[in-house]
Amino acid sequence: MNVSALLTSVGINTGLCAVLLLLYSILRKQPSNVNVYFGRRLASMHLTHRDPLCLERFVPSPSWMVKAWKTNEEEILGIGGMDAVVFLRIVVFSIRIFSIAFVICFLLVLPVNYYGKEQIHHKRISSEQMEVFTIENVKEGSRWLWTHCLALYIITCSACILLYYEYKSISQMRLKHITGSPINPSHFTVLVRALPWSSEESYSDSVKRFFTNYHASNYLSHQMVYRSGRVQKLMTDAEKMYMVIKAASIEQNCKPSLKQHGLCGQPADSFNILPSEDGSVSGKSVVNMDMSKSTKESAAAFVFFKTRYAAAVAAQVLQFSNPMLWVTNLAPEPHDVYWSNLCIPYKQLWIRKIGTLVATIAFMFVFLIPVTFVQGLTQLDQLQQTFPFLRGLLKKKYMSQLVTGYLPSVVLILALYIVPPVMMLFSAVEGSISRSGRKRSACCKVLYFTIWNVFFVNVFTGSVISQLNVFSSVKDIPTQLAKAVPRQVTFFTTYVLSSGWASLACEVMQIFTLFCNLFKRFVLKHKDDSSSGTLSFPYHTEVPRLLLFGFLGFTCSILAPLIVPFLWVYFVLAYFVYRNQILNVYVSKYETGGRLWPIVHNTTIFSLALSQIIALGVFGIKRSPVASGFTFPLIICTLLFNEYCRQRFLPIFKSNAAETLIEMDRKDEQSGKMEDIHRQLRAAYYQFTVASHELCKFECLSHGAQKSSPDPKNVKPGNEPR
Amino acid sequence: MNVSALLTSVGINTGLCAVLLLLYSILRKQPSNVNVYFGRRLASMHLTHRDPLCLERFVPSPSWMVKAWKTNEEEILGIGGMDAVVFLRIVVFSIRIFSIAFVICFLLVLPVNYYGKEQIHHKRISSEQMEVFTIENVKEGSRWLWTHCLALYIITCSACILLYYEYKSISQMRLKHITGSPINPSHFTVLVRALPWSSEESYSDSVKRFFTNYHASNYLSHQMVYRSGRVQKLMTDAEKMYMVIKAASIEQNCKPSLKQHGLCGQPADSFNILPSEDGSVSGKSVVNMDMSKSTKESAAAFVFFKTRYAAAVAAQVLQFSNPMLWVTNLAPEPHDVYWSNLCIPYKQLWIRKIGTLVATIAFMFVFLIPVTFVQGLTQLDQLQQTFPFLRGLLKKKYMSQLVTGYLPSVVLILALYIVPPVMMLFSAVEGSISRSGRKRSACCKVLYFTIWNVFFVNVFTGSVISQLNVFSSVKDIPTQLAKAVPRQVTFFTTYVLSSGWASLACEVMQIFTLFCNLFKRFVLKHKDDSSSGTLSFPYHTEVPRLLLFGFLGFTCSILAPLIVPFLWVYFVLAYFVYRNQILNVYVSKYETGGRLWPIVHNTTIFSLALSQIIALGVFGIKRSPVASGFTFPLIICTLLFNEYCRQRFLPIFKSNAAETLIEMDRKDEQSGKMEDIHRQLRAAYYQFTVASHELCKFECLSHGAQKSSPDPKNVKPGNEPR
Repeated sequence: MNVSALLTSVGINTGLCAVLLLLYSILRKQPSNVNVYFGRRLASMHLTHRDPLCLERFVPSPSWMVKAWKTNEEEILGIGGMDAVVFLRIVVFSIRIFSIAFVICFLLVLPVNYYGKEQIHHKRISSEQMEVFTIENVKEGSRWLWTHCLALYIITCSACILLYYEYKSISQMRLKHITGSPINPSHFTVLVRALPWSSEESYSDSVKRFFTNYHASNYLSHQMVYRSGRVQKLMTDAEKMYMVIKAASIEQNCKPSLKQHGLCGQPADSFNILPSEDGSVSGKSVVNMDMSKSTKESAAAFVFFKTRYAAAVAAQVLQFSNPMLWVTNLAPEPHDVYWSNLCIPYKQLWIRKIGTLVATIAFMFVFLIPVTFVQGLTQLDQLQQTFPFLRGLLKKKYMSQLVTGYLPSVVLILALYIVPPVMMLFSAVEGSISRSGRKRSACCKVLYFTIWNVFFVNVFTGSVISQLNVFSSVKDIPTQLAKAVPRQVTFFTTYVLSSGWASLACEVMQIFTLFCNLFKRFVLKHKDDSSSGTLSFPYHTEVPRLLLFGFLGFTCSILAPLIVPFLWVYFVLAYFVYRNQILNVYVSKYETGGRLWPIVHNTTIFSLALSQIIALGVFGIKRSPVASGFTFPLIICTLLFNEYCRQRFLPIFKSNAAETLIEMDRKDEQSGKMEDIHRQLRAAYYQFTVASHELCKFECLSHGAQKSSPDPKNVKPGNEPR
Repeated sequence: MNVSALLTSVGINTGLCAVLLLLYSILRKQPSNVNVYFGRRLASMHLTHRDPLCLERFVPSPSWMVKAWKTNEEEILGIGGMDAVVFLRIVVFSIRIFSIAFVICFLLVLPVNYYGKEQIHHKRISSEQMEVFTIENVKEGSRWLWTHCLALYIITCSACILLYYEYKSISQMRLKHITGSPINPSHFTVLVRALPWSSEESYSDSVKRFFTNYHASNYLSHQMVYRSGRVQKLMTDAEKMYMVIKAASIEQNCKPSLKQHGLCGQPADSFNILPSEDGSVSGKSVVNMDMSKSTKESAAAFVFFKTRYAAAVAAQVLQFSNPMLWVTNLAPEPHDVYWSNLCIPYKQLWIRKIGTLVATIAFMFVFLIPVTFVQGLTQLDQLQQTFPFLRGLLKKKYMSQLVTGYLPSVVLILALYIVPPVMMLFSAVEGSISRSGRKRSACCKVLYFTIWNVFFVNVFTGSVISQLNVFSSVKDIPTQLAKAVPRQVTFFTTYVLSSGWASLACEVMQIFTLFCNLFKRFVLKHKDDSSSGTLSFPYHTEVPRLLLFGFLGFTCSILAPLIVPFLWVYFVLAYFVYRNQILNVYVSKYETGGRLWPIVHNTTIFSLALSQIIALGVFGIKRSPVASGFTFPLIICTLLFNEYCRQRFLPIFKSNAAETLIEMDRKDEQSGKMEDIHRQLRAAYYQFTVASHELCKFECLSHGAQKSSPDPKNVKPGNEPR
């Protein structure tokens, strides 16, 4: 691939992105799309209806970018929660580090690469091969390899310093989030699983007996988790279907209406009553009582404690001499509970975890097939040999540039679209007790998957899958990587261009939701203006994507600096797009308090270490013992830095410190809030809100159309089992 | 190597063992050796002096074996503590499983191996090559390989069943040990490290402030750890030297005398005052006060709590929002505290751990040199080529048999003797807070070391170290192992014979202590009858040895069944020897409550899995797809079984259950013992007992020669910093 092919790719992608962004700036102004592009605002009821038709509506404008730029972090924190802030921190961190890398690589590395071989006569830039800009162009034993080593040092050190301060600031933010946020029932609640079965007493009685016996001074009450039988499930499903059909025809004038989003591709994970009202608690508990009688207790319960500290202690200390009984965990937030997984017998969990791990690995390998196909496309001559009928077509210069420069990435992207749902399924089967836990687990799985399939497989297969056994030789990995990575750097550059830029444009366009909306509006003739469902931020797809590009950046920047500017553009664009999406589209239904960051940190360290290992291999091949010698301590220092961060920050993300919790408890006790909290606690966790539409009607009747803004102290019930 | 060479080896070793055991049975009857062979009894003062001279003293007798056989587990538990029982359980488990393996291998596998190739004309048994008895003799594609597979299944299943019941019974024993044992101050005590430094208040004040603030209802008191400065250390050393010299000349008529064992090779880790007396506590606290004034507080403290549960909670819950400050752990037993490591700044610990890990691995590789040399000896022809002057010598049949059958093992054993002290040193540098922790860590290190150096290196080097890069190919490991292990089985058999049998004989003879004793008696003219020091059980050398032989047994039994009888003899002999040693020689100074067992369990699972992997490779080479197919699920089941055990039993070995602790607390409160316990607690941990000889004199003066048996409830002070 030469520079002009790259420029073709750049041109196509820039054009595509520009068109999509302009289209977005028009589409977002159409009132009919308000539930696509302003889901969050619609949910929080701040939206004012615009005047129906004017010219301004059809003029593209960058106002959304200005808005995204001007919003500060406090506002984001208020709107999207801490997870959104942490997510944007990934973007900011990437912009910072790749700005540094940009400067270093273009000042130091690129000239050395370009003039690496004196004997080469340089052609015109536009017909220059891409390899000229990579480290492959530096001759063996060159005196100039120290520049690469220096660049590696500067990038690694800057990355480590930035990472350290990010980790520090995020852990402080987490502490502030825990202490500063409104009363969180999950702090007072412990989920007990694996209750021992006895024929003499019910699960509920034995929970009561156990906790009054061993935690008498702190035990408040408990609430059983009920097994939703098959009939229960069928009824729920029927009700759902009924709701969907009804929603299309009946106008709902009951304003705190049932948001339902099974239709729009997003997992239909909850019926939400937004905003919930103060008086509703008593009504709901009646419903709950009714439901509980018709169902069976399962071997799990939520136990409420009088103080946060007591709950944390009960959750962290081994309760019973048989570790497979009376297993305690801190409960997830009420909205975050993944009810159907609570009924899974605890004894199954370990085997489920192993099972999903195996399934994930198997899936990763099965996925090699499309990747291999993609790789075939980048090597035109092989493709022409396999499919002779293509020869005529591919002889046209334009076609061949399109095929090598663009098509491979498109195929890969399309294939990659099925991955997140599959991983989400695996994570659900795994037995996660919270939705956020499931998403985090899926995030890790998708991350491993993308890094493996986009990077390693592309690097190592070339196009022949049988070459995969290079992986069996551990010692030669640096050399193998050093040989293979520069060869694939062109592919990665086009991947950033096509997958990266286009994915952002697609993200901001919300193409899928847009089509759903159009379909509903014009085919189902559904004229409801209100949101057809608020989406929660898809961390499990977006975090791995950002991290993958960071990973590609770190590993390729020294070898082929040309990738850096494209990455930089990607991250800057991402900054605007994701800020806009957080402000307008996604609703944060639950909060993990920045637990994403350790994943980000570890991945970045892995990227750094791998880039160093590759550099080690390259310096070995180029016969530069000095550069190799200097790289080795860098690897060790990076790993030591990681270990230090793990010691210093990770425990905060796993459990809350006694000091913090005790201080919070004291403050609440002194202000006399405790009684109030205890009363609220008992109503916080509701398993069954199936009858919620009836409830909603009931509320409509009793309260009229009275609109009350959601009380932050009031704990919203709402999730129903899936 | 042929059968007669093996028989030579068997002959030599049996003879040697028999001579040593007979010698032991005579030596133990000599009054002069009483402190070598009855150290424990001497320490617990049950020893009656025998009549000085009679014929019986010089007649060998098996009485010690009878005694060892007749002692039951309760007695062992009382004498050697739970760790001794767990150690003997390893031996019993090995005897059981190798009895089964013995039967299976000799009935099923050995005939198949021997008649594996029909065309071979069998010679006389005595001149038969050893290879005839191994799986190498089975022809490719043999129909009889299912016997090996069946044997593997039977051995694995029996091992897993036995392991499960052992784990279960040991975890029950641990629970009983915790609830049933006399009041243990470590249950009430938490070690706090990484106290934050402030210029305004002393460490002691800040500990008090922190715990009265956050654990007001349960905090009892605390005790600082003092940094022993350089002057302190010099003084201690000078005092030690003085004591050693004085001990040689002055007769000590003060009976609860200072046992000191710096002289006898064993680490001089404590001055012990045995037995301690009730009245001594007040005297010692005066000494302690004096010492503390002359030294500096370090950033660590023991904090005493009112209940066991409160201490467990404080130890397990994250205390502070900075995880590198206020780090809590459950304190070790008073005797078990490794004082000098408590002063290590907490921030250093993680880097020390990494450092020792690296050092251990480096040491493992440096150690390859003697191993390579040993392997050179087993291949005579290569040796003759390298050292032509040996050719004449080695032509004699007897010499060549000696060299191949015996010498290699001897060299290896001698080299292996330096390993445990080195690993102990590493574990001390690592920063372990307890002596038992240090020993356990050293045990693991020695275990990895021996398995790596005895098994893997021997298997893979052959004799050429450059072949080591076979390790770089991950995928071929089963095949490589399958090729290499049967070739080395002869060596392992002789290793069991020489190292195993001889090591037991040496263990029972206590050769090193015996020579020390002789040296002291005849060179230093030291006529004191009393023990020159009681040894604690060297778990860090004996457990890895037992596990190594188990490992060799599992991996080789299917391939070369001839190793099994020798192993079986080894374990039976070990049963008698170690029981005898626990009854007579070693004193248990501290107790880990069976924490050794998880190491044993994991090693056994590793051995099983490796033997299955090797079998997989062998079946692959022998082209038996059915056998390979059946082996694969076996590996998976073994690993799943391990995971289950890890879930089911491991947490009990890491922390005590709330239920158990609360019950214990309640019992003590109801019986009114708590006050008493709290009083004792404050006096339990003493850092400085340097002035103990003065104390001893003081006690002698005040109490006269009054002898009181040690009160189990009374916590013995005694360790001094090293």
